[in-house]
Amino acid sequence: MKIEILNTGTELLLGNTLNTHGGWFGRQLFAMGLRVARQVTVPDGEAIREAFSEMVVRADVLLITGGLGPTSDDLTREIVAETLGIELHQDEQALRILEHFFALRGIPMVPANLRQAMVPTGADVLPNPNGTAPGLYLPPRINGRSDCAVFLLPGPPRELYPMFHGEVVPRLRALAGVSDVAGVSELKFTGIGESDFHHGIDAALAEITGLEYGYCARIGEVDLRLIGLPEAIAAGRELALGSFGRHLISDDGSSLEATVIRLLREKSLMLATAESCTGGLIANRLTNVPGASEVFTHGWVTYANEAKASQLGVPMEMIAAHGAVSEEVARAMAEGALRESGADFALSVTGIAGPSGGTEEKPVGTAWLGLAEKGGETVSRKVFHPRARKDFKQAVSQSSLDLLRRRLVL
Amino acid sequence: MKIEILNTGTELLLGNTLNTHGGWFGRQLFAMGLRVARQVTVPDGEAIREAFSEMVVRADVLLITGGLGPTSDDLTREIVAETLGIELHQDEQALRILEHFFALRGIPMVPANLRQAMVPTGADVLPNPNGTAPGLYLPPRINGRSDCAVFLLPGPPRELYPMFHGEVVPRLRALAGVSDVAGVSELKFTGIGESDFHHGIDAALAEITGLEYGYCARIGEVDLRLIGLPEAIAAGRELALGSFGRHLISDDGSSLEATVIRLLREKSLMLATAESCTGGLIANRLTNVPGASEVFTHGWVTYANEAKASQLGVPMEMIAAHGAVSEEVARAMAEGALRESGADFALSVTGIAGPSGGTEEKPVGTAWLGLAEKGGETVSRKVFHPRARKDFKQAVSQSSLDLLRRRLVL
Repeated sequence: MKIEILNTGTELLLGNTLNTHGGWFGRQLFAMGLRVARQVTVPDGEAIREAFSEMVVRADVLLITGGLGPTSDDLTREIVAETLGIELHQDEQALRILEHFFALRGIPMVPANLRQAMVPTGADVLPNPNGTAPGLYLPPRINGRSDCAVFLLPGPPRELYPMFHGEVVPRLRALAGVSDVAGVSELKFTGIGESDFHHGIDAALAEITGLEYGYCARIGEVDLRLIGLPEAIAAGRELALGSFGRHLISDDGSSLEATVIRLLREKSLMLATAESCTGGLIANRLTNVPGASEVFTHGWVTYANEAKASQLGVPMEMIAAHGAVSEEVARAMAEGALRESGADFALSVTGIAGPSGGTEEKPVGTAWLGLAEKGGETVSRKVFHPRARKDFKQAVSQSSLDLLRRRLVL
Repeated sequence: MKIEILNTGTELLLGNTLNTHGGWFGRQLFAMGLRVARQVTVPDGEAIREAFSEMVVRADVLLITGGLGPTSDDLTREIVAETLGIELHQDEQALRILEHFFALRGIPMVPANLRQAMVPTGADVLPNPNGTAPGLYLPPRINGRSDCAVFLLPGPPRELYPMFHGEVVPRLRALAGVSDVAGVSELKFTGIGESDFHHGIDAALAEITGLEYGYCARIGEVDLRLIGLPEAIAAGRELALGSFGRHLISDDGSSLEATVIRLLREKSLMLATAESCTGGLIANRLTNVPGASEVFTHGWVTYANEAKASQLGVPMEMIAAHGAVSEEVARAMAEGALRESGADFALSVTGIAGPSGGTEEKPVGTAWLGLAEKGGETVSRKVFHPRARKDFKQAVSQSSLDLLRRRLVL
């Protein structure tokens, strides 16, 4: 089954918005045993017509993203219908969904939105709970003119992803005759790099019959993806966990922060954070997890030295003597957060994010990480490679959360 | 001049490797006043032939990446030469460059590498100081069969980027001449939606001669992109700012947090934050901006009621009487943060992120936003659409930062 993807959007080709759709579709389809034969990006407007006309002839399935909005540059619906010679009609179901969306939010619906209820005759309306643009599915031979199954999907990931899994996947399975035999398992690791896998277990993974595998390296994280029949996946897991089990974040796709929150909830333990260089990122990651409020109570972003002193009781003389980025200050921040919050654990970080502020002795990328609990504190120093400010923050937050994860699985 | 891009590589379509080439080329070309008409990704191997055959007929310039390596799935060179009916010969210059590359590294050259010295007759060899694969340039009418200028470039960014700037840009300039240089302007707005633009100025924008425009809706933000000659852009800006000027975040691509940090620095004013439902996101966004430490000193993540009381002095009786998500508590949090930090401004947020915790009176999505300064406090209530937790946090942080932005541009 030849699957092609057409991404529409001028912003994708200007480079303002990174086009992550190609890779995302690739991963989803791969997990179903399907492959992408071609991916095409064109600007909004008439360029869609040319690309669509070629692709609909060549492909068995065409997934199109973008151009379903209410404004004048959203032309995908009209171009597809015209090219296939299908009439558009105002669809009652689509209209009701649209009216419901606006009513729920107490916003008046403008006439332009009515275009979003126009549906090619014979097409299925795919509900979009996260936006105004419903998706559309045009089955093969909808008007006898094309053997290609065409999906029109919204561009924004928060709208696209749920619609893909809820509406597209079941139809693709039916089209492809896919049975659920092959599975996928994703193991997330931290504290080791992709090269550790290459050196350590890559050759042995390759020996496992019927196992496809791949790595995805993120900041402070390596994801190992295993695809195959249950026995092949089990053999791959056993191998990976045997070598790197203590670095495992999760085997179900859960993030490090979700793992930490789960472990804290299981043990009914409370956490506080005291952040300098990460500037609130650790608290932000923790509070992205539903239920965080049961275990995370207090966070400080003591960006200024004076804040470290007044809020966490770090002596100004200590900061003067050792510098704000020091073992002593990291320890005192964690102690102070533990004392002020009354929590069971407190994490602290202080470091030099750059671009300025580095010295010979403490280069940009240096960070001290603390973990305090009632029995005392652990403090460790890490030097991260020079990198962009946000990436440094992400790397430090990952190390800090992993300090606690390792403590909790002891 | 119609420029198309062909990215080759199975890994790009499996999603293991994010395809950043499309956007990268877009930005480089745009800076030269050029645009990408279409971007196509195909797997390694024969799929390249089909895509190349179509694109070389349609485009004036074709930029191809990948498939120049020494292994059996690196077929770009051969497919391009065959399709255009050009002989390949072993090129002395390419061979010398290749030998030099290996000699420099003390690695023996294997026979497979000799394929990399095969060059279509009439093509220019583009040196690659960072890898073994030289690039190739096939000028238009190289054999009288195609009017398209074809560049064959290596896939890895560290090889591609220097070759593009050193070898491709000068040739593109010559091909393009200098006449059709358009500019771009991106205006970011907040506090209004895409439909406000459609309602308000879309029709008038469409009337401006030579102006291309488009919208990109993000959470709590709409970006308006204007493309054209300077007069057309100026007319578009005037129209947009005339209607929505007070909602403008920036006209140079700067984020809301960067705009707030810039305004604070210009006025030498200090900021503190007191966050409940956003859980550190506001502090995190602010500290992503280099130079934030000059103006942002203290942040609190008072997730638990007890933290609001002990850290910010919010009376527990007030929380009991009005609830943690209330006008009174938002006001007291902002007051407390201002007092504790000694800053000039303090932002506070308290709300219900969900999925649980909503009531009839205070549904999920309700948030109270405070802004305190020495003269007093402003507090406002917002109800955001039901949405994912992270999106709710982003929407609330956007509203909170915009409260301060509007105050600072008064």
